[in-house]
Amino acid sequence: MLRPPVTATLADFVVEARFEDLPTAVRGEAARTLVNWVGGCVGGASHEALGTIWRAVGPFSGPAEATVLGSGRKTDPLTAALLNGASGAVLDFDDTHLRTVIHPASPIAPAVLALSQHMPVTGAAFLHALVIGIEVACKIGNGISPDHYRHGWHITGTCGVIGAAAACSKLLGLDGQKTRWALSAAATQAAGLREMFGGMARILHAGRAAQNGLSAALFAREGLVSSDAGIEAETGFAKVLSRRHDWAEMTDGLGERWETLENTYKPFATGIVAHPAIDGCIRLRRAHGLAADEIARIEVAVNPIALMLTDNPAPTTALEARLSIQHVCATGIVHGAAGIAELTDEMIQHAGTVALRGLVDASPDDGLERDQARVRIESRDGRVFETFVEHAYGSLENPMTDPDLDDKVRTLSEPVLGADRTERLITLCRGVAELRSAAAIAEAGEAA
Amino acid sequence: MLRPPVTATLADFVVEARFEDLPTAVRGEAARTLVNWVGGCVGGASHEALGTIWRAVGPFSGPAEATVLGSGRKTDPLTAALLNGASGAVLDFDDTHLRTVIHPASPIAPAVLALSQHMPVTGAAFLHALVIGIEVACKIGNGISPDHYRHGWHITGTCGVIGAAAACSKLLGLDGQKTRWALSAAATQAAGLREMFGGMARILHAGRAAQNGLSAALFAREGLVSSDAGIEAETGFAKVLSRRHDWAEMTDGLGERWETLENTYKPFATGIVAHPAIDGCIRLRRAHGLAADEIARIEVAVNPIALMLTDNPAPTTALEARLSIQHVCATGIVHGAAGIAELTDEMIQHAGTVALRGLVDASPDDGLERDQARVRIESRDGRVFETFVEHAYGSLENPMTDPDLDDKVRTLSEPVLGADRTERLITLCRGVAELRSAAAIAEAGEAA
Repeated sequence: MLRPPVTATLADFVVEARFEDLPTAVRGEAARTLVNWVGGCVGGASHEALGTIWRAVGPFSGPAEATVLGSGRKTDPLTAALLNGASGAVLDFDDTHLRTVIHPASPIAPAVLALSQHMPVTGAAFLHALVIGIEVACKIGNGISPDHYRHGWHITGTCGVIGAAAACSKLLGLDGQKTRWALSAAATQAAGLREMFGGMARILHAGRAAQNGLSAALFAREGLVSSDAGIEAETGFAKVLSRRHDWAEMTDGLGERWETLENTYKPFATGIVAHPAIDGCIRLRRAHGLAADEIARIEVAVNPIALMLTDNPAPTTALEARLSIQHVCATGIVHGAAGIAELTDEMIQHAGTVALRGLVDASPDDGLERDQARVRIESRDGRVFETFVEHAYGSLENPMTDPDLDDKVRTLSEPVLGADRTERLITLCRGVAELRSAAAIAEAGEAA
Repeated sequence: MLRPPVTATLADFVVEARFEDLPTAVRGEAARTLVNWVGGCVGGASHEALGTIWRAVGPFSGPAEATVLGSGRKTDPLTAALLNGASGAVLDFDDTHLRTVIHPASPIAPAVLALSQHMPVTGAAFLHALVIGIEVACKIGNGISPDHYRHGWHITGTCGVIGAAAACSKLLGLDGQKTRWALSAAATQAAGLREMFGGMARILHAGRAAQNGLSAALFAREGLVSSDAGIEAETGFAKVLSRRHDWAEMTDGLGERWETLENTYKPFATGIVAHPAIDGCIRLRRAHGLAADEIARIEVAVNPIALMLTDNPAPTTALEARLSIQHVCATGIVHGAAGIAELTDEMIQHAGTVALRGLVDASPDDGLERDQARVRIESRDGRVFETFVEHAYGSLENPMTDPDLDDKVRTLSEPVLGADRTERLITLCRGVAELRSAAAIAEAGEAA
């Protein structure tokens, strides 16, 4: 058959999936995804863009039953999903399914979180819904990548809304028919243009995906008839939003080959293509105790795509600096880290970093993969230090360790929630599968 | 210049437009658009699909300050925009900008209506915002038609959200920068797949367009930075959602050649391609006092597209019957009308209509335009009656008269609001330009 029943197959997967069948590794990775997302979401809550969104829609929001993480406020679940979705995306520090470039937690986790405060949801059900959402979003993404993203779609929004609907359908216990309707109702709300990457409207994509995916499942539960084939139909999601549509990739290996295991987390708050170079710089600093003022020259060789996207010797804002390979390499050497704290508007004026970035000579090398880099540092007294990064830290082959992931969350969350609540939040997310009520997570993420 | 600043030009138009400069004909047509929309929206309010939407999102809605027309309830303005948008589309009886097939009032009027109860809005400002929204939506639509719709997009949703944002930007008094942000934030929420036409999720397109267009303007007012070129950028709306993008068509004649004057209203609650044939049948019935049981044969010749879309001799549901040229022609002869009341699930079982539709012989004729038809009726006693419909009733060249438009509203609204409130509503919409407070319209449309 040329066009198999993709929507129905995905719906069957959603309906029939059992938490008991989730491999331990998948549960573990999903918990790591949750830990990483919660950190970024709490950390992002105080960003001014979140304030603009809240001022716009807050006056029209409903009963305050769902937490907006890190914000000190509750609102209705749909509005909470919008805000937590936007908040998780605003620092650009969220998880990445590398093959599709989907950031799966940002649109899916907020929808699950909102429902966990609206109805009784066990920790296992919460974790399972998150996994189901990730699987559905990323399988669909596999089937339309890379054309869909290249063409201009922000895939986190477009596939994310369907993933969020899948997750919520599972939590709401929808049957096959209603799950097909939910997936289709989500597909017809898919949106998000890459043109928004330059501004803050970008964060609406994950936010709306979370909110609209949740409401698609609620519509279906109440009986709103939509399509049984919203994803694969002739005028459905895949054919309208992508020239490539590999139907098999959207369904093959469901419940067997887990996309959740392919999820990765950023150790550095920068464009991901710059990560190998930063990693190399930090390694040399650590290995040789290098101080910035000893350095005469830094040579960085990277895959050409990294330079295409991040060659900017003199950035003037934090947003620009995070996409400047010269600046982030200098930051790695000066601070031994390149997180949010090292890349604020204030920090990027740091004289030592500004001086050092002038010494960075970045060049393209076709022989290097995207997660590779070669870094060579010459000291003023003539010593030479070199390293080859085979797989950047945070890549699939060299993932962030659990302690580093927890530290990332601490850095993001402690300024907002304080140390005690942050530790509690990490502990709850790590142990989510054992929670009697998953609502404890959102409650722990509430700022005082 | 290959790609002119479309978003900025449209934003300038929105900011600089003055009600005083609106030609009388444009004001009049906009009022007719409002009258027609209000009728369909009130009439649609009791449709079960509206109930499903309300049950899904109602529990999460906010302060009850905006009317859901014909429903007996108020809710927050964003939720009201969703519901009124869906309600105006559910009977498929809304206005049509024929060139683009945009139904402009459904996504735009609900956003304007919601704001009219949230802040002081004069009738002139209300009418002006409606015109501005229609102009922006339809000009953009002109520039991407027909490819965009053919490719699978429900253009009422995709262009409608930008039109709604334009209308709300005007009402909120946004400056040029914020209006550009609003238009771009709307563009990145553009959605709606034609695959949904078979079910009720279709009505979400107009509903979300109204709601998201309104919120795009609210986001921009609060300072959410988006793009200055969301419509024309390389990864912006037009290039991502259409292969055709005629930039000149999106801006030429702004404020001079009015799309509002091209808006049309359906006299029949059926697929628009069947209108010429129905018109011919009703003309013959009126001219010759034909009764159904006198008829031996009905020959209908139409543009081939009409048969492609509506050739269905034995429909079983109202939805199907409204897209059956055989059924709707028979309905026209039996009832002398083909409105919502004549095309309910009950009415389509009417034995006389079922018998008569079996006598309809519909054939394609390449020589006929889409708004033309030839109808020939033979009576049992051998008489022959013929007519040629040069422009179907309700087409641009043969528009519905004001009294007929008012009657259409009465038929739709009286069962919901009663006669007195219906008359008041019609009077207020007809005289909208003179109202001190446009909120009177929504209040009149409140069911007791």
